Amino acid sequence: SSLQVGILDVDLCGPSIPRMFRVQDNDVHQCDSGWVPVFVDQDKSISLMSIGFLLERPDDAVVWRGPKKNALIKQFVADVAWGDLDFLIVDTPPGTSDEHISTVEALRPYKPLGAILVTTPQAVSVGDVRRELTFCKKTGLRVLGIVENMSGFVCPHCSECTNIFSKGGGEELAKHAGVPFLGCVPLDPQLSQSLEEGRDFIQEFPKSSAFPALAHITQQILDGTSQQSS
Amino acid sequence: SSLQVGILDVDLCGPSIPRMFRVQDNDVHQCDSGWVPVFVDQDKSISLMSIGFLLERPDDAVVWRGPKKNALIKQFVADVAWGDLDFLIVDTPPGTSDEHISTVEALRPYKPLGAILVTTPQAVSVGDVRRELTFCKKTGLRVLGIVENMSGFVCPHCSECTNIFSKGGGEELAKHAGVPFLGCVPLDPQLSQSLEEGRDFIQEFPKSSAFPALAHITQQILDGTSQQSS
Repeated sequence: SSLQVGILDVDLCGPSIPRMFRVQDNDVHQCDSGWVPVFVDQDKSISLMSIGFLLERPDDAVVWRGPKKNALIKQFVADVAWGDLDFLIVDTPPGTSDEHISTVEALRPYKPLGAILVTTPQAVSVGDVRRELTFCKKTGLRVLGIVENMSGFVCPHCSECTNIFSKGGGEELAKHAGVPFLGCVPLDPQLSQSLEEGRDFIQEFPKSSAFPALAHITQQILDGTSQQSS
Repeated sequence: SSLQVGILDVDLCGPSIPRMFRVQDNDVHQCDSGWVPVFVDQDKSISLMSIGFLLERPDDAVVWRGPKKNALIKQFVADVAWGDLDFLIVDTPPGTSDEHISTVEALRPYKPLGAILVTTPQAVSVGDVRRELTFCKKTGLRVLGIVENMSGFVCPHCSECTNIFSKGGGEELAKHAGVPFLGCVPLDPQLSQSLEEGRDFIQEFPKSSAFPALAHITQQILDGTSQQSS
């Protein structure tokens, strides 16, 4: 039996998740128990809510200051008919500001399992994630671990690997901060293409270099969170 | 004679510019006319202001909602002793929210030349920049042009080019929106390394693939803005 997973996209100015699942033209409807999220798969095991579904035109700019953003995030948590979920995954923009504060506040009653921090290998990105670690400590949010994205590129022509953005910053930071390092995701044109076209990466590219990396990270997260809830 | 350029980093939650110039350990001092920005070169032709200089520790998280961010951005424009500048470059985070609204409002009395929008080639990123175009239209900010970053990677081992994140999204968007396309910047490990270590890219890697691309873009911007001011 598959898990029921909800995805909440709180990147209000850059809602890119609907396109990655190829459901960007869907509308959100109201039912008695609130907004009905959009199911992205035939099995209806993954449901998604995003401001992208609420804009009239895809080019509409969300020129909102903090208070309006905060109100919508509260609604996204409380007024969406999520149903029984095994996991709710919240995708935030980078930073430690309104979206993050509001999300942590809105989810507090539901005792969130924790945060997964994603960095690229460079020091400038690691610096941002160091600040996000401080944010988690301040707000009492457990850190499930750190992921290093865009970690090396294997040339499809000659199979040599180049660390375009250097390498190892994520792992080093995890060690330094005493939190789990969940793994590296390489730069992979097949993964980019899947996200770009809203195709099913797992079905179409099972031999891609990013696939074992993503499977490993997912397993680490499942292991870490089942320990916590048991 | 070189131009006097000010750089204002309004990415308050992720201030990465100080590290890129290797001045992250500098402090900002007060003088009679306000905060003194940090000069990043020996000739004192480039001055920089960033919240990075105001944090006690580099890991400090800026857990600020909008109003505090807005107040600081106003101060960064009005209370910094910028001196006589030929250009003030403002680097914003992605999006169309507090930082962007406040910057446009604070700069309005100075009649800003316009905005340069940076996208990566993928549709998800182009989507964000389409919303930023709408923001510029709404706020009456001229669009100087669009830059496509991370546009293709030339393998240093076999010299074959791979478009890791597809290609052409920036140029297509510029055509569609009727604004100038300023050029493409390829993925370039030497450029990443320079930014990572705060080294002078122009001096150290004049033969890099990104160099002619950046020179071309700069010239386009200078041509476009001199037409406007003459």
